[in-house]
Amino acid sequence: MILVSEVGPRDGVQSLDAVLPLELKKRWIAAEAAAGVREIEVGSFVNYKMLPQMADTAELVAFARGLPDLNVAVLVPNLRGAQAAIAAGAHKISIPVSASETHSLRNVNRSHSQMLDEVSSIRGEIDALPEADRPYFEAGIATAFGCTIEGNVPESTIVRLAEELIAAGAQEIGLSDTTGYADPAMIRSRIKAVHRAVGSDRLTGVHLHNTRGLGLANALAALDCGMTTLDSSLGGLGGCPYAPGASGNIVTEDLVFMLERMGYDTGVDLEKLLKVRETLERDLADGPIFGFLAEAGLPLGWAKTKGRK
Amino acid sequence: MILVSEVGPRDGVQSLDAVLPLELKKRWIAAEAAAGVREIEVGSFVNYKMLPQMADTAELVAFARGLPDLNVAVLVPNLRGAQAAIAAGAHKISIPVSASETHSLRNVNRSHSQMLDEVSSIRGEIDALPEADRPYFEAGIATAFGCTIEGNVPESTIVRLAEELIAAGAQEIGLSDTTGYADPAMIRSRIKAVHRAVGSDRLTGVHLHNTRGLGLANALAALDCGMTTLDSSLGGLGGCPYAPGASGNIVTEDLVFMLERMGYDTGVDLEKLLKVRETLERDLADGPIFGFLAEAGLPLGWAKTKGRK
Repeated sequence: MILVSEVGPRDGVQSLDAVLPLELKKRWIAAEAAAGVREIEVGSFVNYKMLPQMADTAELVAFARGLPDLNVAVLVPNLRGAQAAIAAGAHKISIPVSASETHSLRNVNRSHSQMLDEVSSIRGEIDALPEADRPYFEAGIATAFGCTIEGNVPESTIVRLAEELIAAGAQEIGLSDTTGYADPAMIRSRIKAVHRAVGSDRLTGVHLHNTRGLGLANALAALDCGMTTLDSSLGGLGGCPYAPGASGNIVTEDLVFMLERMGYDTGVDLEKLLKVRETLERDLADGPIFGFLAEAGLPLGWAKTKGRK
Repeated sequence: MILVSEVGPRDGVQSLDAVLPLELKKRWIAAEAAAGVREIEVGSFVNYKMLPQMADTAELVAFARGLPDLNVAVLVPNLRGAQAAIAAGAHKISIPVSASETHSLRNVNRSHSQMLDEVSSIRGEIDALPEADRPYFEAGIATAFGCTIEGNVPESTIVRLAEELIAAGAQEIGLSDTTGYADPAMIRSRIKAVHRAVGSDRLTGVHLHNTRGLGLANALAALDCGMTTLDSSLGGLGGCPYAPGASGNIVTEDLVFMLERMGYDTGVDLEKLLKVRETLERDLADGPIFGFLAEAGLPLGWAKTKGRK
């Protein structure tokens, strides 16, 4: 069983110029959940003056909590965001921490040590809750495979940061290829190095982009190293509108196709998911939408070829 | 060392409506060779009434033979094509044999047993030559991962056909994902099964399409199984103009990027190759051209990250 974690309503939507109506997002989230997607990152608790696309995150959390069998995830940049996420009732909270300190300073104006303090404070906030109310708390290491400002980011930096984030109270860390710089060899090497440092149960998912076309090859490399959660976005939503070929996140429907065709169980009904994509494509009209499966269609004999593992 | 075998001038060009001028093809082939591409399939010796795009193949072979360090490959459908290829002086001859007999009958109007006869006759023709003049002779198993007419094609069919093709005189067989139906698990399983049947030196290359976005993931799976030759086409040329997202062959520049970034040596200068693509894009004007790297650009610090293995 592989968990395909849909990040389109957060990572995809925040990259659009337009602010999507709340009702549209609700329909989209409900339709994906109905297609069998079991985790959706519905938004982020950030400064809404800077990211008005995310202003309805609390309402989306409340709505998504009402959907059956759905893990409701959100992104938070800091303690304040985590408090809002807890108040809204998110099941999973992720805080991105950039491995490139230059990127961290430019993006959230915080050094590594300040981010680690933030993680500790969130841990404290969560521990103060009754056990049943505590969200799962993950720290996502951003620019884990290179940075558009610093260039290469050494593997040793990733390992050290992973250790520090776990020590500071993250239950798990994730590796994010924010910049689309990863290759399969790097994916394998860094996952193994982090597993050696903090244990394989502390890193079970990756967040990949398809900027240079290597997204699914990187996903395969991650699967080979035992990853069981893969982030993706429907229609690859999140691509930069100014670079039409360069898509954003890996494409949910293409990823599910690869996984199911390989014999993994994702729980997702691909025919239904493709219908959700069609609706999204209509709704977005001019928005950048990516992916290959939707154009090419499912292979002849598809239902018969699906395995399970 | 991984051999990236450029098939754009054959597989790409034959799918275009327009017939490209000979001079354009010559410039393209020369420019790719100058960028370090070491094998190019320059055309096919088919019935030119049916495929006028390929009518200049003999001239292209003669031209390409004059370029330094280039292995000049061609496709042939039958003995007659092989005779023309030998007369022209091709270094490598590939005959496609479809694993789906229905596909074979519709495509070249020949059954498996007729195709095996063809392979034997070509073997005889080659053996009659002085040893120094003999081209390398490969049979490519088409629809090796499924067929748009028959659907699934059993692994046992591929293994039996591989054995028969080697017995009939092919020096090597290749596996072609003609329909874009392959997934990484299938790639691994079928390569291993064929290796067990005919030996690992008899299958060293695959021909992949990116129809459903899995092209580079499949390439990674093939590399993991020891493949050392990967076919691809510059700009993914060969995509169907009527399905804009669904590209044809895997994209040479994206593949080279993945390989070099992983530390493999391809001999290709990626910066130069991207310039060849720019020229091709201008030359084709309206032609379908694919790929991610050209849009996104090389990562910051690229030159420093390249390894060698």
